Amino acid sequence: VTTDEPSGKRVGIMARVMEAHDELAARNRERFRAAGVVAIDVMGSPGAGKTALLEATLARLEGRLRCGVLVGDIATTNDADRLARSGVPVVQINTEFFGGSCHLEAGVVARFLGEMPLDELDLLFIENVGNLVCPAEFDIGQAARVVVLSVTEGEDKPLKYPLAFRGASQVVLSKVDLVPHLDVDLGAVRTYVDRVHPGLGMCTVSARTGEGLGAWMDWVEDQAAARGPLR
Amino acid sequence: VTTDEPSGKRVGIMARVMEAHDELAARNRERFRAAGVVAIDVMGSPGAGKTALLEATLARLEGRLRCGVLVGDIATTNDADRLARSGVPVVQINTEFFGGSCHLEAGVVARFLGEMPLDELDLLFIENVGNLVCPAEFDIGQAARVVVLSVTEGEDKPLKYPLAFRGASQVVLSKVDLVPHLDVDLGAVRTYVDRVHPGLGMCTVSARTGEGLGAWMDWVEDQAAARGPLR
Repeated sequence: VTTDEPSGKRVGIMARVMEAHDELAARNRERFRAAGVVAIDVMGSPGAGKTALLEATLARLEGRLRCGVLVGDIATTNDADRLARSGVPVVQINTEFFGGSCHLEAGVVARFLGEMPLDELDLLFIENVGNLVCPAEFDIGQAARVVVLSVTEGEDKPLKYPLAFRGASQVVLSKVDLVPHLDVDLGAVRTYVDRVHPGLGMCTVSARTGEGLGAWMDWVEDQAAARGPLR
Repeated sequence: VTTDEPSGKRVGIMARVMEAHDELAARNRERFRAAGVVAIDVMGSPGAGKTALLEATLARLEGRLRCGVLVGDIATTNDADRLARSGVPVVQINTEFFGGSCHLEAGVVARFLGEMPLDELDLLFIENVGNLVCPAEFDIGQAARVVVLSVTEGEDKPLKYPLAFRGASQVVLSKVDLVPHLDVDLGAVRTYVDRVHPGLGMCTVSARTGEGLGAWMDWVEDQAAARGPLR
């Protein structure tokens, strides 16, 4: 979301665009607060396991918390179709209709919130476009941001994509069932996370086997419990 | 690289920025042609296996073709350090010094070409920033573009990130040694690649075990052989 040919004019225009964007994010945040909904943004690389994590999460929250999902992709409704099987309200945002955008923006999220019964929800998951870079640059009004990083991606991703980890409320290290088949050093992941965001919470999970999901569900329920007084 | 608040003025400015960008890409292309170098852009998600593929490739090309690598990351010189062990000239571009850019741009590539002995090379690999979205939007003057997609990312990525596959000259489906431990359907990957780019060439490889690297090396050598007459 930047170009290499800076000019005073463009920088000035971009600064004003980002200011307008942050105002839209603040409006989303106020809307979530008024509805008593905790919005959790879930970001990560393509194929990091964001949708599988949400499938497992929704199954475990059934009957405990009222959830909804906004899901962003450049194209296809594959993820919304998968998540809708859980029975919760799911809305797919295809950014190809907004310039093929590589991330969700506050204004786009706002447009689709009208399709979501916010007043009837405790938690709104927002699955961002698969991208470990650009979504980190845009506040969409979330209460918390989760970075999903799969063990197959290698240890050094926190160092190489620092903004995502600096702005995160929690890391979910996913696909841990594959560790025996990889050369990955989980201790090094922890070290590198700490280097860019000391003490950042991290769950190590496998959505496929269920391993580690207990700690993740505790974190999710803590987020819901921390919301303001009920309406 | 877009925002959700279009205005005639911004669109006009972006169009001019992209025009200037394409001119810089054309200049890079002419520079490669004049030097008799085939430039191959390698893009893919974070952790798709781009660097591991290049390590295996450089080892196999030693003594056969003269290679160099430009490697783009937001931060760290990890990849350049790994690739430099092959003994070829390697230059790391950290985009954090260019606004933390989520992709390489033609002008940034041009600045770093001065550090690369182009006249002494047959092949220049350009490892793009790990991102399956934004690099696809920017021509950097490459002769060919390779998309590296790991089998752990799931079958539907060609449909969800169509621009990357539409603009690709070749797909490398990586980490195929992990297939026995996954639920991935390789036939479905082929079907989805064909849906967005019918007939696009695809190699299925494991840089770790060497499986499938023969077909990949044939493709690379074909690219080198197709370059213009030698100086």
